[in-house]
Amino acid sequence: MAIQKKFSLMIPGPTPVPERVLEALGRHPIGHRSKDFQNIVKSTTENLQWLHQTKNEVLTITGSGTAAMEAGIINTLSKGDKVICGENGKFGQRWVKVAEEFGLEVVQINAEWGKALDPEKFKNILENDFNKDIKAVILTHSETSTGVINDLKTISQYIRNHKKALSIIDCVTSIGAFNVPIDEWELDIVASGSQKGYMIPPGLSFISVSEKAWKANELSNLPKFYLDLKSYKKSLLNNSNPFTPSVNLMFALDEALKMMREEGLKNIFQKHERHKRAISEAAKKLNLKLFASEKSLSPSITSIETQNFDAESFRKNINDKYGIQLAGGQDHLKGKIFRVGHLGYINDRDIISVISAIGLTLYERNMVNENDIGQALIEAKKHLEG
Amino acid sequence: MAIQKKFSLMIPGPTPVPERVLEALGRHPIGHRSKDFQNIVKSTTENLQWLHQTKNEVLTITGSGTAAMEAGIINTLSKGDKVICGENGKFGQRWVKVAEEFGLEVVQINAEWGKALDPEKFKNILENDFNKDIKAVILTHSETSTGVINDLKTISQYIRNHKKALSIIDCVTSIGAFNVPIDEWELDIVASGSQKGYMIPPGLSFISVSEKAWKANELSNLPKFYLDLKSYKKSLLNNSNPFTPSVNLMFALDEALKMMREEGLKNIFQKHERHKRAISEAAKKLNLKLFASEKSLSPSITSIETQNFDAESFRKNINDKYGIQLAGGQDHLKGKIFRVGHLGYINDRDIISVISAIGLTLYERNMVNENDIGQALIEAKKHLEG
Repeated sequence: MAIQKKFSLMIPGPTPVPERVLEALGRHPIGHRSKDFQNIVKSTTENLQWLHQTKNEVLTITGSGTAAMEAGIINTLSKGDKVICGENGKFGQRWVKVAEEFGLEVVQINAEWGKALDPEKFKNILENDFNKDIKAVILTHSETSTGVINDLKTISQYIRNHKKALSIIDCVTSIGAFNVPIDEWELDIVASGSQKGYMIPPGLSFISVSEKAWKANELSNLPKFYLDLKSYKKSLLNNSNPFTPSVNLMFALDEALKMMREEGLKNIFQKHERHKRAISEAAKKLNLKLFASEKSLSPSITSIETQNFDAESFRKNINDKYGIQLAGGQDHLKGKIFRVGHLGYINDRDIISVISAIGLTLYERNMVNENDIGQALIEAKKHLEG
Repeated sequence: MAIQKKFSLMIPGPTPVPERVLEALGRHPIGHRSKDFQNIVKSTTENLQWLHQTKNEVLTITGSGTAAMEAGIINTLSKGDKVICGENGKFGQRWVKVAEEFGLEVVQINAEWGKALDPEKFKNILENDFNKDIKAVILTHSETSTGVINDLKTISQYIRNHKKALSIIDCVTSIGAFNVPIDEWELDIVASGSQKGYMIPPGLSFISVSEKAWKANELSNLPKFYLDLKSYKKSLLNNSNPFTPSVNLMFALDEALKMMREEGLKNIFQKHERHKRAISEAAKKLNLKLFASEKSLSPSITSIETQNFDAESFRKNINDKYGIQLAGGQDHLKGKIFRVGHLGYINDRDIISVISAIGLTLYERNMVNENDIGQALIEAKKHLEG
């Protein structure tokens, strides 16, 4: 059966899961109202706050990252509220749809897919909002669909200067890979998902909520029940959950967070930075074009534009020959780019193996020679050794 | 560590998980857009339709049973719609709250906790609804909080006679334990959760949706995104999901459903019936009082009223001495009842061990003698052998 095949997951989620974590996942479930489970909720909550660099509550929801983002929006806003949505990819687009579905008035700030959002556009609109009509700024930090990281540090400064607007940020593929100091940047809502930097399978999502966001929550009139964050906050006081949580994924989360603490935040961020550089610089040596702007390369995903060949058959070849799963392009980018995920439990060997596989597949197509492959790997080595 | 303790879960969820299923759960995740994963979605969907006895779509949501029930309500109804909610326990109460949160006009049909809902009350209201104002009847089949099973067969007949109203049914602790022939009873929405009869950990919920419910969906104006069932239906055509699904729980589900098909529906239902009888009849031999009406005993949970002692310290003793986890009473029933879950992967040994443990704990308190214990076990044996 294909599931048992020896393969390497290098898509931007699900990401690889360490054995220690898989072992925890496969334990027999326990009662979610037991003392033992309360201890797990307590320990994961403390470690999530450490990872998120925040004193805010970090709530765990059984659901995907989209559920957490939707929760952020519907718990802090009301029908007719004006919001800014940054859109430069599939996920940015999704938050526009969610905002519109719930009757918000959306002002879009767009950038071409593959380019970063321009922070100055946020500044202009926010500075000219003299009546303080803008209730929130919604955007995606690391755009999984394109491999672009937006300049959240600068944009968050402009949001803070506005004083009224909340920041509601999709950090699904940045938390656990890139420095996102939530308290320092005063981010109000930060949403993320388990199958990314957290090194566990999909099925849980996380949301951190600031004091300012809880105040906004008191005024929010959008209907909600399963995603009503007040009930999660109340249960958390008792290290519990309002609804039956995904018990086994909580075992896995507990173990994965312990591993992350052993590694340390600085090491985790540096590892992702080294891997990003190694892949992107090696790709250039293989005459490949990076899809995202060089200054805005995501630490988690590298998108490569296949200018003169079909990206879909290329990644199929790599999967069939070398058992490495890469992601394709979405929507109009299908066939035009492929995406290499290097998020979470990835080591240097994974990086050199994907570079070798890409190199050999290009070689088979007479697009590079032996010298190019060797140079790409040596270039990667340089960046891996930092 | 307590998690590693040799214990037996006899709460009404999470329920015990077979080794085969835990092994599947602990596999390395695969890409959720891969062909291998599409095969799993296809196979689980077919087997869910078999288990649910329906040709309707059975959609899988990453979330708890509450998420599935909320989805059923917000996808078929509109603000101001009039609905009947049956309420005879904590879950019935919850659906009233959900319906009110989304602005529905709720007519409650109540019964004392521990008693079944009276089908004739549904008949009266539905038959007198000459203007066909009632858009849906919402109720809980097996009330987990009390151990009562409502007479869904009769009530569903009255809903069908009304012709307009949809049935939206919480079958969280009845599917996989009791015969719920969805197509034969023409149930429109049936919601359930993975940690119950399905023999897998919590984290997934299921919802079957009839043709009539999809028609109602076209008129529904309540806002939704993560729980928008149309997007799940559309993705299912491609054996896929609108959002990243809980991949590892899907591995577990696939394995558990295969085990259920090997066992067969008739055997599954008979096993639950035998276990229910064995426990309830043995309890009487131990001079214990059943909390639920004898004619409405749930096949999944037996609630026992502790008339002259504290239920909480009693179940703590059983947990500490014998490693059997039982559930307590909720809300005003706390301390007054304990609940024995016998749902899912439970065998005859589990049943005789819990009866022995209850018997010995009563003996320690001078509430029964050796003869009572022996009689209780012999009575159980009679029912176990059917």
